[in-house]
Amino acid sequence: MSTSSPANETPAALTSAQAPSARSRVRRVAENANYERETLYAIIDAAYVCHIAFTDPHGTHCIPTACWREGQHLYIHGSNGSRMVKRMLDGAQVCVTITHIDGLVLARSAFNHSMNYRSCMIYGQFEALVETADKRSSMDAFMHKIAPGREHEARPGNAKELAATTVLRIPLDEAACKLRRGPPVDDAQDQGLPVWAGVLPLQQFQAPPIAASDNVVAAPDYVRQWHRSEER
Amino acid sequence: MSTSSPANETPAALTSAQAPSARSRVRRVAENANYERETLYAIIDAAYVCHIAFTDPHGTHCIPTACWREGQHLYIHGSNGSRMVKRMLDGAQVCVTITHIDGLVLARSAFNHSMNYRSCMIYGQFEALVETADKRSSMDAFMHKIAPGREHEARPGNAKELAATTVLRIPLDEAACKLRRGPPVDDAQDQGLPVWAGVLPLQQFQAPPIAASDNVVAAPDYVRQWHRSEER
Repeated sequence: MSTSSPANETPAALTSAQAPSARSRVRRVAENANYERETLYAIIDAAYVCHIAFTDPHGTHCIPTACWREGQHLYIHGSNGSRMVKRMLDGAQVCVTITHIDGLVLARSAFNHSMNYRSCMIYGQFEALVETADKRSSMDAFMHKIAPGREHEARPGNAKELAATTVLRIPLDEAACKLRRGPPVDDAQDQGLPVWAGVLPLQQFQAPPIAASDNVVAAPDYVRQWHRSEER
Repeated sequence: MSTSSPANETPAALTSAQAPSARSRVRRVAENANYERETLYAIIDAAYVCHIAFTDPHGTHCIPTACWREGQHLYIHGSNGSRMVKRMLDGAQVCVTITHIDGLVLARSAFNHSMNYRSCMIYGQFEALVETADKRSSMDAFMHKIAPGREHEARPGNAKELAATTVLRIPLDEAACKLRRGPPVDDAQDQGLPVWAGVLPLQQFQAPPIAASDNVVAAPDYVRQWHRSEER
């Protein structure tokens, strides 16, 4: 996350280990960097979508796509014919980024405004799953993330559908997280200004499920529990 | 947005005009493409953050950063020293992507699962604002988006702060949107399966404001109205 101001620090430092590589080292506001696995896993597991940067002969692209984690890999899938899948199969170097925005941070000075967020960047190359059994197992894991238990209910992919789908994974070895949380941090000379200071929080909200007009099946647990609270 | 299945179509076609360039033409599930300005503007205006893909000697990067729109440009800002800002000033070709996830789409077959979303991709080059007055005006526009009226309340950036900040903009000429909405679309032979079908909606939720512990100022309108409803 780029911020406007080196003064925009998180009050408590979150950083720990060293960056795993030069390209994954957090440059700006490095005090907000975090290279711990548990932090990375939590950011990925809270996301339905990542953004993938890659190049092809047309230029540099940034494509959003669904993602999930199994162990020490992030997974995606796509149609065999997609340009992104083709580039991944060609061994393109990529940067996978996930960002959760947690709030707008209103400081007394314009310059010290910020956002609270949790983000990660993963560098490397994707590899495709070759075995049909592995693809099926991974797609089940994806379904389990979306709706726990539904992997036993929905009609599974048949041979043709699985053959048309590429499942790819990237190791989580070369990754960096960057986070900010907490209240605004004003310069000392601004702290007495008559300006409201605080955070306007943002959350991902699970709104009431909408059954298809031709649905005749009772809602399973993951549907009934979807709209369980304002906080995830 | 990459999806797993060409069968995962939006019931009503949203597409209209032609893509403005080869690299911005939507390839996968092209029925979900939309090249209209009003659609693009709405997606940008609903976003606090974009993801920017670019390359430098370390490789390809995907960096999240705050964004806003003025007229026919998308704006970002950053510290003069950031590697992304430096590359933008060098005239790097970029792809700017914004994604809003609106729901998980549960079809009766695993293969026809999808997501509802609104996304856009903007290709081109950023240009820096040169005049201090223009930078100040744009930062005010950004503040107005974050908290309408606060551009008249917060202590404005001083000469040193403005000098340390680069404000950049990219024209919205070479852009494409991709959207999906509505219920799942099952294959005919799956429609009788005893599997719940529908959408699990996701929304960005404005949770109650959190005043800084040392705040002594009454909440202005944009703070009191922040937590006004579950829907934005």
